[in-house]
Amino acid sequence: MSEIAETAIVYPGTVIGEGCKILDYAVVGKQPTLSPRSTASREELPPLELGAGTVVSTGAVVFAGTTLGERVIVGDQACVRERCTIGDDVVIGRGSLVENDTSVGALTKIQAHAYITAYSLLEDNVFIAPCVITTNDNFMGRTEQRHELVKGPTIRRGARVGGGAVLLPGIEIGEEAFIGAGAVVIRDVPARALMVGNPARQLREVPDEELLGGPGDT
Amino acid sequence: MSEIAETAIVYPGTVIGEGCKILDYAVVGKQPTLSPRSTASREELPPLELGAGTVVSTGAVVFAGTTLGERVIVGDQACVRERCTIGDDVVIGRGSLVENDTSVGALTKIQAHAYITAYSLLEDNVFIAPCVITTNDNFMGRTEQRHELVKGPTIRRGARVGGGAVLLPGIEIGEEAFIGAGAVVIRDVPARALMVGNPARQLREVPDEELLGGPGDT
Amino acid sequence: MSEIAETAIVYPGTVIGEGCKILDYAVVGKQPTLSPRSTASREELPPLELGAGTVVSTGAVVFAGTTLGERVIVGDQACVRERCTIGDDVVIGRGSLVENDTSVGALTKIQAHAYITAYSLLEDNVFIAPCVITTNDNFMGRTEQRHELVKGPTIRRGARVGGGAVLLPGIEIGEEAFIGAGAVVIRDVPARALMVGNPARQLREVPDEELLGGPGDT
Repeated sequence: MSEIAETAIVYPGTVIGEGCKILDYAVVGKQPTLSPRSTASREELPPLELGAGTVVSTGAVVFAGTTLGERVIVGDQACVRERCTIGDDVVIGRGSLVENDTSVGALTKIQAHAYITAYSLLEDNVFIAPCVITTNDNFMGRTEQRHELVKGPTIRRGARVGGGAVLLPGIEIGEEAFIGAGAVVIRDVPARALMVGNPARQLREVPDEELLGGPGDT
Repeated sequence: MSEIAETAIVYPGTVIGEGCKILDYAVVGKQPTLSPRSTASREELPPLELGAGTVVSTGAVVFAGTTLGERVIVGDQACVRERCTIGDDVVIGRGSLVENDTSVGALTKIQAHAYITAYSLLEDNVFIAPCVITTNDNFMGRTEQRHELVKGPTIRRGARVGGGAVLLPGIEIGEEAFIGAGAVVIRDVPARALMVGNPARQLREVPDEELLGGPGDT
Repeated sequence: MSEIAETAIVYPGTVIGEGCKILDYAVVGKQPTLSPRSTASREELPPLELGAGTVVSTGAVVFAGTTLGERVIVGDQACVRERCTIGDDVVIGRGSLVENDTSVGALTKIQAHAYITAYSLLEDNVFIAPCVITTNDNFMGRTEQRHELVKGPTIRRGARVGGGAVLLPGIEIGEEAFIGAGAVVIRDVPARALMVGNPARQLREVPDEELLGGPGDT
């Protein structure tokens, strides 16, 4: 049994697991609408799949071609684009956007108003604070080579990215690293480094008691 | 008399003052949806209360357990969470989010795309520019002690926070202070200080003619 | 012929060109709702006009008094306010807001979560990366003179503004300039300058191969 609000729109074919909730005015399973000028493929994507216990909140939009794991929460007015794979127990905060072709590992939390660009990889247990900004195109729409170079961030297991931090295209954030609020990260960050500033520089290491599996991991 | 659009959803028990307007696709008075893993209380919150003349705009979401004063405007596609107290004549801009357990004083303006974290206190006559980012958890989801240390900003009467500024957890912004656009505020700010940069440093004082009750307060 | 979802709300008088699509829960052609305290004119605005082939996506809101050109895409959950003029082939990304009295030239791309303040001018072929923040009021709501001094950015032809960059009020960004991600721009930027940092300083010039009409303009 799942609970689907009368005003929710569920596109045909969408696979809805046991115990899912789809709240008022949510739209799930929609196909992308291509511009008349787009050169992207016009083939229909496979249907959206929602794992057991997953919640799509009020006014959220989730596209076809994506798979959400079990007990995922897509917050109010959030959006998840096509061809994403979202692991179990992930939270996607209110108003956030996860762009196409992105993979998010289990137990990762993306808080409100975050922007996860296309072609991103977030591993398990990542923490994305509110309003984090990611990017994937150093050329911002110019040059032919940009198409092969477009690359979102890779954020390794247990890394934490602070409120309003900005990640430049293709950056790798190492395991258990900590990016301070408002930092602008312009190169790869080693595991466990604590970074602050614009441009971000390393201040110290993340202390033992904040590591995954440590005494403070609750 | 109040005007409620046919497509607005008003949850039972919501108290709607004289002359309120609730626009298309707004959802007002909803209870929070807890995750299966959440340890938060599952008791039902008291109904939402809207003071006289308050407007909830198109596609906005306002939760139960919250009280909005008189002549408040909740902008299009904005969201106000549970257990907030919002004073008279407050504006909450388009797309902004006011998280749970937050208090906002009379005449305060929160412009578009702002993020006001949980457990924030904004006093009267505060000005929050577009895209301001606030935070409340220095530990970003790790350690047991974070639960007792979680703390949003305290923004005193008449303070102004510029576009895209980032406030670290628990920061106090003094009365009539002015935070420049893009500043990253990492410690408490004295009354009337004008701060800029990352990290923010004091540049000068706010001039007399910009103070509340001064010649420029119109 | 145009395609209008059953759940879309189209206000009377809205002019809809050939081949337009208006998706689920979009609201198009609405009049502004003024606060009881507002001194703005209460005259009804002329209807919204949508050029041929324009798409208003799921949950988006577009106001009366605005004109969208041909083949414009207004992304999911985005918003365009009143009295804007949007050129042909413009993209307004998911969740972005274009405030009132703004002009956007042909082929300009505004990516997701951007904030374009009121009284902005964006010329043709501008690129606004995700989460860009613009401002128009140095006085943040104080002083009488602010009303005549309010001024959004002027962004010249072919300029590119990076993810999360912040533009102070009234800034002019020259033709083909490039603002790096996370930069805070506090004064006018010359044509073709590449700027980074907080406050932004010039690092170098944009290379030939990235200019409009050059070999990389595809």
